[in-house]
Amino acid sequence: MLVERLLAGDRRALARLITLVENGSAAVPDIMRRVYPRTGRAYTVGLTGPPGAGKSTLVDRLIAALRRATTAGTAAGTSVAVVAVDPTSPFSGGAVLGDRIRMQAHTLDPGVFIRSMATRGNLGGLARATAEVQRLLDAFGFDWVLVETVGVGQTELEVARLADTTVLVLVPESGDAIQTMKAGLLEAADLLVVNKADREGAHRLAAELKHMVHLHRGGQQASRDLDWEVPVIATEAANDKGVEELLEAIGRHRVALETSGRLLARRQARRARELRELVLAELRREVDRALGDGGALAPLLMEVEAGRLDPYGAADALRGRVKVEPPPLNS
Amino acid sequence: MLVERLLAGDRRALARLITLVENGSAAVPDIMRRVYPRTGRAYTVGLTGPPGAGKSTLVDRLIAALRRATTAGTAAGTSVAVVAVDPTSPFSGGAVLGDRIRMQAHTLDPGVFIRSMATRGNLGGLARATAEVQRLLDAFGFDWVLVETVGVGQTELEVARLADTTVLVLVPESGDAIQTMKAGLLEAADLLVVNKADREGAHRLAAELKHMVHLHRGGQQASRDLDWEVPVIATEAANDKGVEELLEAIGRHRVALETSGRLLARRQARRARELRELVLAELRREVDRALGDGGALAPLLMEVEAGRLDPYGAADALRGRVKVEPPPLNS
Repeated sequence: MLVERLLAGDRRALARLITLVENGSAAVPDIMRRVYPRTGRAYTVGLTGPPGAGKSTLVDRLIAALRRATTAGTAAGTSVAVVAVDPTSPFSGGAVLGDRIRMQAHTLDPGVFIRSMATRGNLGGLARATAEVQRLLDAFGFDWVLVETVGVGQTELEVARLADTTVLVLVPESGDAIQTMKAGLLEAADLLVVNKADREGAHRLAAELKHMVHLHRGGQQASRDLDWEVPVIATEAANDKGVEELLEAIGRHRVALETSGRLLARRQARRARELRELVLAELRREVDRALGDGGALAPLLMEVEAGRLDPYGAADALRGRVKVEPPPLNS
Repeated sequence: MLVERLLAGDRRALARLITLVENGSAAVPDIMRRVYPRTGRAYTVGLTGPPGAGKSTLVDRLIAALRRATTAGTAAGTSVAVVAVDPTSPFSGGAVLGDRIRMQAHTLDPGVFIRSMATRGNLGGLARATAEVQRLLDAFGFDWVLVETVGVGQTELEVARLADTTVLVLVPESGDAIQTMKAGLLEAADLLVVNKADREGAHRLAAELKHMVHLHRGGQQASRDLDWEVPVIATEAANDKGVEELLEAIGRHRVALETSGRLLARRQARRARELRELVLAELRREVDRALGDGGALAPLLMEVEAGRLDPYGAADALRGRVKVEPPPLNS
C-alpha cells in the first residue's frame, strides 16, 4: 500500500516509509524489494566534512542553484531531495538541528524534499538505513539526492561511498589537521571544497590540498580507472559564492563517470556491498539462533560460559564449520 | 615466546603483545588462547563520559589512591594498569594525548602501567581489541585494570560492558543534555560521578541523576538481579576531592557483585559475547570467501551486480541457507 502510494508520488507515504526505515521495521526488506526495480534514475551526491564546515549552508545553496536551473528553463523538472544525517549524541544533540533551519526556505517548494536522520547511537546500521532512504527517494522520482553527513570517520566514509559523486567540505580552520588526514578520506572524495574561502588560510589550504591530490593521483587513477583529477573548489556558501562552480564540477564528474562506464561500475559495486551487508545481517541472526536455547552451538556456549573452554579455542573449533549454501538461481 | 615472557612478568613483552593486538596481528587468536587460562584475577573498572569531563584526571587520582593503599600497608601489592582509549579522529587528534601527560607522574612506579590505544577509525574492532588488552593486563598480574573511554555512544557502551564496574563521569555542563540521555547509558552505569562538583549546576545535576536512577531502578534490578542502587558521587578530581569516596563506592559495588554471584554471571555473559563476536568475525571471512571468485555465492553476486536481482531478493533467497555446524566437544 505505502509503496504503491510512494511510486504514485505521495509525499506522506514517502515520509512514512522513511520513518519505517529509520526505525528498522521488519517490513523494510519487503519494501526495498518492491522499490528496487524503480531505482537507478536519481543522481546522488554525498557531502561530508568536519562539524562547522558549513555543509548545511552549502547544501541550501546547491538546492537553490539546482532549482534555479529548473525555473529558468535550462533544465526541466530538476527535483531535489536532501537526507541530512545527524550523528546525534546524547551530549551534542540539538546543535545540528539548528543548521536544518537554514534549509527551511525550501520547504514550500514542491520540487524539494528535506529530511533529517538521526543515528541514535547505532552507527553500524546508519549506513544501511541511509542507503535505503536514498533508494526510496530515487524510486519516488527525485532527479537529485543529496546526502549530507557530519564527520570524517569510518561511517561517514561508508555513507559517502553510497553516492555517485562524493564531496569533502573543509574550511581554513581544518588546515593543520590536514597533515594527519587519512589517505582513505582523500581517496573517497571526488571533489574537494574549501568553504568559507574568505577566511585567512583558505589559499594555503587549497594549495596544500591540490598538492596532496597530485601526490595521490597515481594510485587513484589505477584504482578508479577514470581520468579525473580531484578538483579543489573555493566557496563562500554564506555569500552564495562558488556554488555554481561546484555544481558545474559535479556535472563534469558525472559526465566523466557516465562516459567512462564508471558510473555503472560504481553502482554495481554498491549493489555488491549491499548484498554483503544483508547476508551478514542474516548470518548474525543465524549465529544468535545457533547460540540460543536449543541451538546447535548452545553446548559450546555453555562450555565457554563455564570457563572450561576459552572463546578463542571455541571459535577455532568452529573454523570451516560455517557454510553458506547457494540458492538455486531461478529468475 | 612473548606470551611466556608476559606470564613471567616482562613488561616489554606486555607492551609488544598490546601492539600486536592493536594492529590486529594474525597471531592474536593464538596469543589469546594461551593467555586465557591465566585471566580472571584482575578487577576491571570502566570509566566513560563526554569529552572534557575530567576522566583522565580522575583516573590519575584513582591510581594514586589505589597505590596509597598499597604503600600504607592497608592493601598488599595493589598494582594498577590503565588502558586509555582515544577516539582519534583526523580532525580532533592530539587533544586527548595531552590528557595522558597528567598521568605521567606514575610512569616511574613499577606497580603502575599506562597505555593509550587509538581507534584508527575502526570503531567496530576497538571493543574487541580493548577486551584483548584487558585480558593481557589481567594475565600479566595487575590487580586493577582501569579502562578509560571518551564518549557516550554505542562503542563506548560496548567497551564499558567489558568491565566489572562501569563508572559514568559527567560534569555540570552536561546537565542540559541529560534530558536526552538514553536510558541504555544510565543502565550501563553502575556508578555515576559528577566531576568538577565545585562548578555551578553540580547540585542540580546530581539531584536530577538521583531522580533518574530512582525512576529506572525497578527495571534495573529485575534485569540485574542485584540489590544495588546506582550511587551519584560528587568529585573534584583536580582538587583530589571525592576520590576516596568513589573508590569506596567501587569497592562496595565489587562486594555486592561478588556476594550475589553476579560477578560470575557478568563474566560469563562477557565470555559469551566474546564467543559471539569471534564467530561473527569467522562468518564475515566465510561470506567474503563465498562472494569471492569461485565462491558459492559468486553467481548470485553477479546477478545482483548486473541489476537482474536486487540485493534484498538475493538475501531473501539465502534465508535458512547459512549453516553453523557444531564441532565435536572433546575436552
